[in-house]
Amino acid sequence: MNTFKITPTNKEFIKKITHKINNKTKPIGSLGTLEIIAQKLCLIQDTLAPKLSKPTMLVFAADHGIVNNYPVSSCPQEVTPQMVFNFLEGGAGINVFCNQHGFDLSVIDAGVNFDFENYDVLINAKIAKGTKDYSVEPAMTKEQCEQAIKKAGEIVADKHAKGSNVISFGEMGIGNTSSASLLMSAVTKQSIETCIGKGAGLTDEGLANKIAILTKVQEFHGVSENPLENLQNFGGFEVAMMTGAMLKAAELKMTLIIDGFIATSSLLVAQEINKNVLDYCLFSHVSNEQGHIKMLDFLNATPILHLNLRLGEGTGAAIAYPIIQSAEIFINQMASFESAGVVNPAD
Amino acid sequence: MNTFKITPTNKEFIKKITHKINNKTKPIGSLGTLEIIAQKLCLIQDTLAPKLSKPTMLVFAADHGIVNNYPVSSCPQEVTPQMVFNFLEGGAGINVFCNQHGFDLSVIDAGVNFDFENYDVLINAKIAKGTKDYSVEPAMTKEQCEQAIKKAGEIVADKHAKGSNVISFGEMGIGNTSSASLLMSAVTKQSIETCIGKGAGLTDEGLANKIAILTKVQEFHGVSENPLENLQNFGGFEVAMMTGAMLKAAELKMTLIIDGFIATSSLLVAQEINKNVLDYCLFSHVSNEQGHIKMLDFLNATPILHLNLRLGEGTGAAIAYPIIQSAEIFINQMASFESAGVVNPAD
Repeated sequence: MNTFKITPTNKEFIKKITHKINNKTKPIGSLGTLEIIAQKLCLIQDTLAPKLSKPTMLVFAADHGIVNNYPVSSCPQEVTPQMVFNFLEGGAGINVFCNQHGFDLSVIDAGVNFDFENYDVLINAKIAKGTKDYSVEPAMTKEQCEQAIKKAGEIVADKHAKGSNVISFGEMGIGNTSSASLLMSAVTKQSIETCIGKGAGLTDEGLANKIAILTKVQEFHGVSENPLENLQNFGGFEVAMMTGAMLKAAELKMTLIIDGFIATSSLLVAQEINKNVLDYCLFSHVSNEQGHIKMLDFLNATPILHLNLRLGEGTGAAIAYPIIQSAEIFINQMASFESAGVVNPAD
Repeated sequence: MNTFKITPTNKEFIKKITHKINNKTKPIGSLGTLEIIAQKLCLIQDTLAPKLSKPTMLVFAADHGIVNNYPVSSCPQEVTPQMVFNFLEGGAGINVFCNQHGFDLSVIDAGVNFDFENYDVLINAKIAKGTKDYSVEPAMTKEQCEQAIKKAGEIVADKHAKGSNVISFGEMGIGNTSSASLLMSAVTKQSIETCIGKGAGLTDEGLANKIAILTKVQEFHGVSENPLENLQNFGGFEVAMMTGAMLKAAELKMTLIIDGFIATSSLLVAQEINKNVLDYCLFSHVSNEQGHIKMLDFLNATPILHLNLRLGEGTGAAIAYPIIQSAEIFINQMASFESAGVVNPAD
């Protein structure tokens, strides 16, 4: 499955980038995380003058078989299509934040248990009407998993062909924090218990139930060294599609904005398939879902925002986007000590 | 000097605001800090539909007498006018971030040791060509201090009259972290040593010197229970002007975006003059200057960004502005559970 050709970025270039950043009219290092972001943009685009173009947000929605049989979520499954309608009608968080920052938003039906009419922003890529209940069988077949990865890649390629070079991935799927926790445990080798949180709003009792249920699920399937097998066993279709979308976007040298707990679980799988994907990733925020910070630590990632968000949908990435733009803007537009005639205290 | 009439916001209103926020189509609390910001905007504007209008950035620049006689800064005093020229020519950090977010930027000569020509964005409010060396006498007279507060208030009133209801305050002044540290120690009663950091870039040895110098300064003047006396003894003109500007902006019920270490030192003084000013403040970021987080803790403030910034100029506030807009946008534009036909799991 390692059919994605992802070129590592050229780390030799860092010296030149640092020189440019350190000659801006500011104390060395005083733009903090913005300097880290600017460096990454330069590396990804292999230029000292990076330019963000046509930001894309792909929100993948799907249902999870486990939800029909076990109380892993505080919400019933029908909330998935209801929220998709909310996306299509423009009323959800992701809509208003994408509008704010000029994102091209597409909603992808990756496998919702509902038949939608046509909408401009809806892409029908349904693999099936929800995954199977992974307490008794794999969530999806090998073919379905490969199909999900391939279809998502095609959607990304289409956005790239239309001029987008920065992309993020959101999700909606009642029950999908469970998939994410199982994948996190499989990839990071941390105990399943440490990978589980309250999701949209479980009580303490609900959390204890979720831990008990997912512990059994993990025992049933075991953990594979093959990332695709873990994805088949535990993944939602939206999770698998995000994995494929990330790998394709990195192959196309786009800047990837990785969002919260579910999206990062897709990246955990993606980086097992091809480690170079990480060279193209920025991390929008650290979520209030408790496992997320451990995922970020595992990836040695610096999150941009610390806003205690846990809404999903890609909202953290949309909200963080202007900060990434600030990094683009300072490296392109700020004066240097020489051009401004300011004494450089480092000289 | 408590001539500012600042109305406290109406805390009874919080229940209605919370009801509106909790009925948005998202898990309760899942927008984290954005919800705190939205609540504050509603309280300040006394409405469930707050609207940010014409953001203003006032950057106050001034010189500090201490710099001529003691090495409290890594930069020579001439960097103050050089950086002001950079502001006037549009090349500094604050310029590019203000442009990014549509801020109306004014640069106020509060007391730079240089005579500037006329520039459109420059406001001449010079109190004197730098403060006196506070190691041997008060930095400014009582009259100068009152004049600084008054002039700054007039500038704010003018911006408000032109339709601005959201404002921030930046600064430039070689040596001004020393003023801020002395004021922080005076207000928070923390030892002067814990209030001092490396500023723009002191070495460890430079830091030790700065601590020794400012310890003597504090011993020389002592700490007054009168906030204005502390401001006269330790303040820069830009620090005093920011104090006045904050009090006036709160009186006018504007939303104040408080920036980094120096700006927050001005607020520490302002809230001793009139505690109600705090009802109008948002806090843009927690700075990498080590004392700043202690100031925020003292004020029980939640910073929006954690980006390890320490550039000053108001840059943190400009960079944080789109996050504040996100709060305004979600509370106004997101659908409610009822309007979107989504099951509310809290029901």
